Amino acid sequence: MARPKPPPRVVLTNSADECEAQFYEALQTGDLERLMALWSDDEDVVCVHPGGGRVIGPAAIRASFEAIFAQNPVPVQPEQVRRVQTHELAVHHLAERVTVLTPQGTQTAWALATNVYIKTVLGWRLVAHHASPGHLGEPPDTAGETPSTLH
Amino acid sequence: MARPKPPPRVVLTNSADECEAQFYEALQTGDLERLMALWSDDEDVVCVHPGGGRVIGPAAIRASFEAIFAQNPVPVQPEQVRRVQTHELAVHHLAERVTVLTPQGTQTAWALATNVYIKTVLGWRLVAHHASPGHLGEPPDTAGETPSTLH
Repeated sequence: MARPKPPPRVVLTNSADECEAQFYEALQTGDLERLMALWSDDEDVVCVHPGGGRVIGPAAIRASFEAIFAQNPVPVQPEQVRRVQTHELAVHHLAERVTVLTPQGTQTAWALATNVYIKTVLGWRLVAHHASPGHLGEPPDTAGETPSTLH
Repeated sequence: MARPKPPPRVVLTNSADECEAQFYEALQTGDLERLMALWSDDEDVVCVHPGGGRVIGPAAIRASFEAIFAQNPVPVQPEQVRRVQTHELAVHHLAERVTVLTPQGTQTAWALATNVYIKTVLGWRLVAHHASPGHLGEPPDTAGETPSTLH
């Protein structure tokens, strides 16, 4: 007899920071159930993978991460986090440090990400993850923090 | 005698949609004062221009748009808008259609943008604008709306 499907994972998150920490841990470990439990169930949640098109809604987002994890977990660390926060909303902007294997050995690549969280009855949930294509080498410049050329 | 500096422009916006419409009109007309009046004055507001680094805080964002408008206004139209909204927050995801002049004539380029708005006492204000590099030709695929390959 087929084993019944386990119920969807419920993750309680007390803050946007905690939701974000769990999101990146789920990416690092390739834990699809945990990753998807962190998203709001709103049909218009959106995910933009670096260099990719947009993926809208929990089902399509799940499928996109399933395809990614079928290759490998994602060795990514959030850094340089900046926050705009109200009592029910948090906008986090950060640099994603990704470890990549190249013919020249292990290198560090950087992407820029905006993560948006809302407070729900179950805690904080992700409603948008937008990541821009990265570059190898040094961390990204941030105008407004350091003397920087404009882009 | 030097003329006194005009007071900062105050723009009233009754909805995130209205704030967004005014944002793109300000881009199209190169109206820096109107554009900046639409941003929240939070020090951690963030702007990512397509293919650029991140720009944080109203002063740095102003400088970045001033440099852009010194070249030209930006002929950009918002399309395919998707929304996640609460009573004090709106996350809009959209495709930006940009008219560009190339050696082959006028062409259409597309970028992907996430715009985040919060409700303030003066109406809705932008707290994040994150745009990813565009491509020429057809509008971007959206997984979750149309049969689409994963990225």
